[in-house]
Amino acid sequence: MPLAVARRNRYTMNADGASKGLSLASINQAVVKCEYAVRGALAIRAEELREELTSKAPAAYPFQRIVSCNIGNPQQLGQQPITFFRQVAALTEYPDLLKSEHAAKLFAPDAIARAKTLLAAIGGSTGAYTHSQGIPLIRQNVAKFIEERDGFPADPNDIFLTAGASPGVQLILQTLIAHEDVGIMIPVPQYPLYTASIALFRGNAVPYFLHEEETWGLSVDELARSVADAKKKGLDVRALCVINPGNPTGACLSVENMRKIVDFCHREKLVLLADEVYQTNSYMPKEFPFNSFKKVLKSMGPEYDSVELVSFHSISKGMVGECGRRGGYFECTGVAEDVKEMLYKVASISLCPPAQGQIMVDLMVNPPRAGDASYEQYKSEVDSIYESLKRRAERLAAAFNKLEGVSCQPAQGSMYLFPQITLPPRAIEAARVAKLEPDALYCMELLNATGVCVVPGSGFHQKKGTWHFRSTFLPPENDMDDFIQRISTFHQQFLTRYS
Amino acid sequence: MPLAVARRNRYTMNADGASKGLSLASINQAVVKCEYAVRGALAIRAEELREELTSKAPAAYPFQRIVSCNIGNPQQLGQQPITFFRQVAALTEYPDLLKSEHAAKLFAPDAIARAKTLLAAIGGSTGAYTHSQGIPLIRQNVAKFIEERDGFPADPNDIFLTAGASPGVQLILQTLIAHEDVGIMIPVPQYPLYTASIALFRGNAVPYFLHEEETWGLSVDELARSVADAKKKGLDVRALCVINPGNPTGACLSVENMRKIVDFCHREKLVLLADEVYQTNSYMPKEFPFNSFKKVLKSMGPEYDSVELVSFHSISKGMVGECGRRGGYFECTGVAEDVKEMLYKVASISLCPPAQGQIMVDLMVNPPRAGDASYEQYKSEVDSIYESLKRRAERLAAAFNKLEGVSCQPAQGSMYLFPQITLPPRAIEAARVAKLEPDALYCMELLNATGVCVVPGSGFHQKKGTWHFRSTFLPPENDMDDFIQRISTFHQQFLTRYS
Repeated sequence: MPLAVARRNRYTMNADGASKGLSLASINQAVVKCEYAVRGALAIRAEELREELTSKAPAAYPFQRIVSCNIGNPQQLGQQPITFFRQVAALTEYPDLLKSEHAAKLFAPDAIARAKTLLAAIGGSTGAYTHSQGIPLIRQNVAKFIEERDGFPADPNDIFLTAGASPGVQLILQTLIAHEDVGIMIPVPQYPLYTASIALFRGNAVPYFLHEEETWGLSVDELARSVADAKKKGLDVRALCVINPGNPTGACLSVENMRKIVDFCHREKLVLLADEVYQTNSYMPKEFPFNSFKKVLKSMGPEYDSVELVSFHSISKGMVGECGRRGGYFECTGVAEDVKEMLYKVASISLCPPAQGQIMVDLMVNPPRAGDASYEQYKSEVDSIYESLKRRAERLAAAFNKLEGVSCQPAQGSMYLFPQITLPPRAIEAARVAKLEPDALYCMELLNATGVCVVPGSGFHQKKGTWHFRSTFLPPENDMDDFIQRISTFHQQFLTRYS
Repeated sequence: MPLAVARRNRYTMNADGASKGLSLASINQAVVKCEYAVRGALAIRAEELREELTSKAPAAYPFQRIVSCNIGNPQQLGQQPITFFRQVAALTEYPDLLKSEHAAKLFAPDAIARAKTLLAAIGGSTGAYTHSQGIPLIRQNVAKFIEERDGFPADPNDIFLTAGASPGVQLILQTLIAHEDVGIMIPVPQYPLYTASIALFRGNAVPYFLHEEETWGLSVDELARSVADAKKKGLDVRALCVINPGNPTGACLSVENMRKIVDFCHREKLVLLADEVYQTNSYMPKEFPFNSFKKVLKSMGPEYDSVELVSFHSISKGMVGECGRRGGYFECTGVAEDVKEMLYKVASISLCPPAQGQIMVDLMVNPPRAGDASYEQYKSEVDSIYESLKRRAERLAAAFNKLEGVSCQPAQGSMYLFPQITLPPRAIEAARVAKLEPDALYCMELLNATGVCVVPGSGFHQKKGTWHFRSTFLPPENDMDDFIQRISTFHQQFLTRYS
């Protein structure tokens, strides 16, 4: 019982006179226990190495720089931002530029027009708090985008702009987790935002397993098995999270599969949480097109109107890749008005999402159209990023599949590959001695030998006895040969060392 | 017992077949119960009126626009941003501007230099996730700022950049609230972020009362009374929040008073949470200068080294007023390394604060200095905002003090006045019938009659049987006469109506 421990420890610490309000033993044990592997031990070690590389002679390590493949952070690895987006951002930050005689030389006319529209919508300054739910005009544009995408109506009042998808997910989980027996179904492997946040809010992650051998497919039988097991344990299962396209798996769900999932939620009265932040990162659009859960749900007819769906989107992913400004939104479908009022109230405690994040949501959902001054450049930039991502995904998956004891599913979507690695028994034993998960040992040795930072599969959870790592395929194309070479050499040396 | 209620309600709702995961009865009751008056019923009504005013004939109301004095949001009310800050923001958003032949005409050389430095520090793009604790260079600059301000060392590793002060406060409260009997001492009146967040994390607000008749002074006897009462109730009191300069009171603490507060925390083994976001909003700097708790604590000698202090600052207040970009920081003093690691871990789940918020922290703590190209303009802009705020504070306080039955303490600091209003018994009775707090009735009638939105004192808590409201003094100076006139006329009519 963590609560009892925390209560006892506080008084123990008082008695011996030590400082106590903020000690590991006395603080909220949910804070102590939650884990977020994407920025965990590996990422911390990578930061240390990065600092050492800049402060010491580069000869200290057999590499000159850290390649952060632990996180989908494209612009850190050299992806260029979309010009139109940044022109509008700059103009809204410093509206004096609009008055300059040079404005027309420096900025496209549609960027100037958009900046003026946005400045008017936000009351003149990116320095003012906005509406807590997000700037009304931008929510209207999000609703239009959803309508065009899905062919079903969307209401700006159902849309909440957020500081990236993560705070939106956290707000919904915090709202759902009414007591310590609440269960939230999550895929395994999952993006660790889910396990970390569920642990922070003292709920219970209820795992359902994706089928690696079927390109990480999701079966409704497995959902039924998962919820039945959870109920046996006395859990009050309230929601099902689906990540589509998958993170870390890259898998894209078929419409048929999605209909079964919606039906399952309807039968089990589960809130459906659809993490759709990779909706434009779909690299086999003919075979595995992206469909939103909103569209699938709405196409199933009025008997499914009672299904509660919350869909998340972000400016950090896709070809936008604007992680640093923190922007995103969620759309509520079938959610009661009074509950939306509660969401608004809690959102308002943090005042508002960052204005530049909101502006980027506007640009993402309402980009230049054919005929606009910036359209050709916009389209060429987006297409070039997309094609390059697709090439890099294929190339890296092929390289992983060439490694001894490694098998990697193709990336249908997202920004990640999640290869399975067979680790020699001696490596597993060495990990046990080092008190590490075997894949964490592998990843730590990879980092120390090559400067490449990936995340151990154990951070995403995985089927017992299998080992993986997650790597983005974001290193620039002209670094790919070197990147693949470094990993391959390390991998062979690792196998030799532990054989 | 909210937990038991939530558990029962879920199953009740299941039985009758209604949708249930997201109903008021089934969700986290802490979400349902928490209150945040600054953006509560009054602010929601103000938004409705604002929409009506733009969509209908303005004749529908006896005013043309809404004046939002419910929230310290200076740029919404026309305060101009600091030019240097926005030049750097624009250049970091669109670095192509740096290559333009017009750059030197459009931007000051020190803005160009700063943008280059910041772009190098963030790896080239504001679109990349940064270090979860904040960009290292900016944390170094924050540490230098604190050292210059206080005369004591500061360590960049003790500093966490945040998306405004609020998420920092919430992170610390979430960490402190280990179980449902934890108490957090808060001033009354308080900024409702505290009661809202403590309620969300299922802790207990332990009120200590400020002395209105002594310009909202804080007495250590009252702190002792408060903690003793809480202990009698079985609460495990772990921290003391102090807001200095005060919100909503504007009061600035003396060094003597602060030393007693530190000593009280030392004796009672309480973590000291110092909300110092109004540190530059000090309008009587000779009589009531701002001193940081860090400085006071460090000046008290090594026997106080065990005191744990977390100090909060923000870019939203002061003469910066950049609320919309969400930036701030907190500094940990005397906090254990392993606890800071936990704070880092939880911060990393949300990835990073917005890059433009972090950049503005850099500009706030490291503004142009004498001799820099932008210095004269910077100084003139800051001085002009400061002098104007001071004049508006004095003018509005004088106007409030002229109203029948109203008494208002002078604003020593912050952006608010918190006048006490004597309400006629018939108004109190009318409020009872309308199921409103009497001061909420007053504020709602004020809004509907004048378009002026303020916050009822009940939202900040107040001594029983006293009524107040909080108003910013942020309306532009040339609107002040009209603003005061509108409130005065309403006030007289209100008294007549309920006499």
